Amino acid sequence: MTRYERLAQIMATEIRSGNVAAGSRMPSLRQIIAQHGVSQSTAARAYYLLEQWGLVRAAERSGYFVAPRPVNGKATQAVTADEDEATTVDISELVFSVLDAAKQPGIVPLGSAFPSPTFFPLSRLAKSLGHAARSVSPWSTVVDLPPGNENLRRQIALRYMRIGISQPADEIVVTNGALEALNLCLMAVTQPGDVVAVESPGFYAALQAVERLGLRAVEIPVDPQTGLDLDVLANTLRKHPVRACWFMTNFHNPTGVTLSDAKKKALVDLLAQHDVPLIEDDVYGELHFSPDYPKPAMAFDRHGLVMHCSSFSKTLAPGYRVGWVSAGRFAERVQRLKLMTTLSASIPAQAGIADYLEHGAYERHLKKMRLALRDQRDALCAAIRRWLPAGTQWTIPDGGYFLWLRFDKAIDAMELHRRAIGRGISVAPGPIFSATSAFEHCIRLNFGHPWSPRIDAAIRTLGEILSETVKGA
Amino acid sequence: MTRYERLAQIMATEIRSGNVAAGSRMPSLRQIIAQHGVSQSTAARAYYLLEQWGLVRAAERSGYFVAPRPVNGKATQAVTADEDEATTVDISELVFSVLDAAKQPGIVPLGSAFPSPTFFPLSRLAKSLGHAARSVSPWSTVVDLPPGNENLRRQIALRYMRIGISQPADEIVVTNGALEALNLCLMAVTQPGDVVAVESPGFYAALQAVERLGLRAVEIPVDPQTGLDLDVLANTLRKHPVRACWFMTNFHNPTGVTLSDAKKKALVDLLAQHDVPLIEDDVYGELHFSPDYPKPAMAFDRHGLVMHCSSFSKTLAPGYRVGWVSAGRFAERVQRLKLMTTLSASIPAQAGIADYLEHGAYERHLKKMRLALRDQRDALCAAIRRWLPAGTQWTIPDGGYFLWLRFDKAIDAMELHRRAIGRGISVAPGPIFSATSAFEHCIRLNFGHPWSPRIDAAIRTLGEILSETVKGA
Repeated sequence: MTRYERLAQIMATEIRSGNVAAGSRMPSLRQIIAQHGVSQSTAARAYYLLEQWGLVRAAERSGYFVAPRPVNGKATQAVTADEDEATTVDISELVFSVLDAAKQPGIVPLGSAFPSPTFFPLSRLAKSLGHAARSVSPWSTVVDLPPGNENLRRQIALRYMRIGISQPADEIVVTNGALEALNLCLMAVTQPGDVVAVESPGFYAALQAVERLGLRAVEIPVDPQTGLDLDVLANTLRKHPVRACWFMTNFHNPTGVTLSDAKKKALVDLLAQHDVPLIEDDVYGELHFSPDYPKPAMAFDRHGLVMHCSSFSKTLAPGYRVGWVSAGRFAERVQRLKLMTTLSASIPAQAGIADYLEHGAYERHLKKMRLALRDQRDALCAAIRRWLPAGTQWTIPDGGYFLWLRFDKAIDAMELHRRAIGRGISVAPGPIFSATSAFEHCIRLNFGHPWSPRIDAAIRTLGEILSETVKGA
Repeated sequence: MTRYERLAQIMATEIRSGNVAAGSRMPSLRQIIAQHGVSQSTAARAYYLLEQWGLVRAAERSGYFVAPRPVNGKATQAVTADEDEATTVDISELVFSVLDAAKQPGIVPLGSAFPSPTFFPLSRLAKSLGHAARSVSPWSTVVDLPPGNENLRRQIALRYMRIGISQPADEIVVTNGALEALNLCLMAVTQPGDVVAVESPGFYAALQAVERLGLRAVEIPVDPQTGLDLDVLANTLRKHPVRACWFMTNFHNPTGVTLSDAKKKALVDLLAQHDVPLIEDDVYGELHFSPDYPKPAMAFDRHGLVMHCSSFSKTLAPGYRVGWVSAGRFAERVQRLKLMTTLSASIPAQAGIADYLEHGAYERHLKKMRLALRDQRDALCAAIRRWLPAGTQWTIPDGGYFLWLRFDKAIDAMELHRRAIGRGISVAPGPIFSATSAFEHCIRLNFGHPWSPRIDAAIRTLGEILSETVKGA
């Protein structure tokens, strides 16, 4: 860590402690220099960092002031992008340590973000891929530049039509998975320093993107039963210059909650009032256990403000890295950013998936996968009831492959994570889903793997660890 | 355009005109408010934009000053990222209009950035792809997350070994083409506002990345015969806080020039003195006409400061979007950025290329392609001599598929571009290769397509257009 980073962290700790009131004047550069024995440039850079983190604001010709806290007592913590790893703090480090742990061979992947790859029709897909790669025109490398392979975009438009959404194929931009779609959308509508509303708890990639792009996050609470708190959002939109929202409306990661149609409509209307774009992450929608795909928020959008992002990575072709966004009025901007950053998604992968969608049995595969996931959810719930301590609360999602547990206050999810890893089990600890210190008693569990005695035994082991840690406390 | 963008542009024009001396004090916010009848926030935002553009600097508590001009009279123009298209000025618009024109079916692609896709062993590759996709482990979707497919990284390491570079496979990060590699490297070592040295003329993607990431560019002149001007670079490094260089050392785009070994070594030493990382774009190195691959600058690096970026897009598998970077001491940082932005390159595409490299005939294919390109270069030079006006100068590159022409001063490359498009021919006009207004008499021509009477006729047509425009002027 450099001297100014250290200094900034000392000052950040002080500000975050709450001992310094919002709006109060920070020490002048001269005072900092005297107090900490640092050079002028060190002091100036430390303030630069604090400003980036959203902790102080510079007032023209009158120094620095403590920034107002975000609404609702949620601290936002936007970390500057691309610093030395030692200082790329908190959320990214945590997330990477959890991801790395899940990569260990032989671990029971309850903390994984992926469903079991054994679900997917990979050999049928490989056939489509080989066929498409042989028959694709050599010129497709020029023609299929963004927005992407035309057949694929037509097939995606047909899937929208199945759920009652008329989506012109030429507003669909094919991306390297939904993750790139989400990131490009965020870049398309923000500039460094802008405020973005994200969910709390929420998908950590949103927080990482906020860090990386030098944005500031306001976290909007998500209730595990009813979803996003629209009152807090409304309040936030009134008080803060929010430039974009990044929300997951169906089978939310990590809680598994789905917004009702009425809430989705209210959300879209609220954002339209404020002319704020919604980046809608809907990668799990196809994995519904009820008969119908829960409509995404984009279905209620009449202003082209919703950028609906999804992919085939969770439903058909993990590793192919083919996702998309129907980006409404932002389609061209997103397409250009795509051209400038990664040029195009893999063209044979796009053509292969298009071929499979046309000739494969995607619907049949999805039906099978949904049933399997539902059964695995039930098995996981039974194991939780059997092995985990009374007082544990959890969600029973109607789709996807995550559920969310809240333990008794005596239990520290990070400690559970560490001990579980030691016994060959991964879990996703609550703190990776927020830049605040919240959710320390929560974990996310994955039920995306075929149920087995080994998984049942892993839940039993979690129960043992929990009773040990509580006793030890 | 918003009010503050308009205001910023007015002020920018004034500054760029040179009427205001570098270092002189800009009007205070109060003066701007009075003078232009705008609100305080409009005035403040306009200054914010001007600062982003590198045109003014804020001094703590004493207002704004005109920023010093970059060395050597080259204007830098870093445009803020992600603005409304109407204001994302100059270089991106120009580049996109040229790219779009090249997408027209039936156009003679002298302005194209790609070689003819008919060169590539696409059906042999498709076989490898199908085979790899069938045999790849389902778990590769977890295991092949960055840094990427292990076989592929081993094959890439072997290719480094062929040119005398010992490159550990685990410092190689597989990316979605070299373009993503270059962008990730730039993100890994810069923060918004930082100064980056690029080439002039240079690959427009570097300028676009600078715009997008809110960086500032200093353009270092490239001599079409000898390459990068190291004296100017040395001078720049002394005067400016350059945080990274993005250079193309072999068969430079657009000039085709290759740095000598001595210059590459001097470049690496110079950057080591200043501890400045080099992002080395070496996507054309394999397409050498002399017997040997011209060593990349990374071969001379002893400090892990060179990030060597390349891909298979120009040499084997366009559209597969598989590239890589050997990122030296920055490998882990790049890998994490990759994980956060696009997660991974397409896994079957990686495995397919690895299979081809292992079992295909890559060397034989490359030899054939190099000979074809050399013959096409010669044919293009002959056509230039025959059809283009006396006084035209051009480079005769020893690899790649671009050459660079400089016309008489009476000729405007943008005008030539527009007229040529009207007659079904694309060229790449000089102005897209710089954010300055330089190179208005230059164009880049592509000799990456099998020579044909149609291409010969296109050069003849360019000659006709040139004589018309000169007469018309």
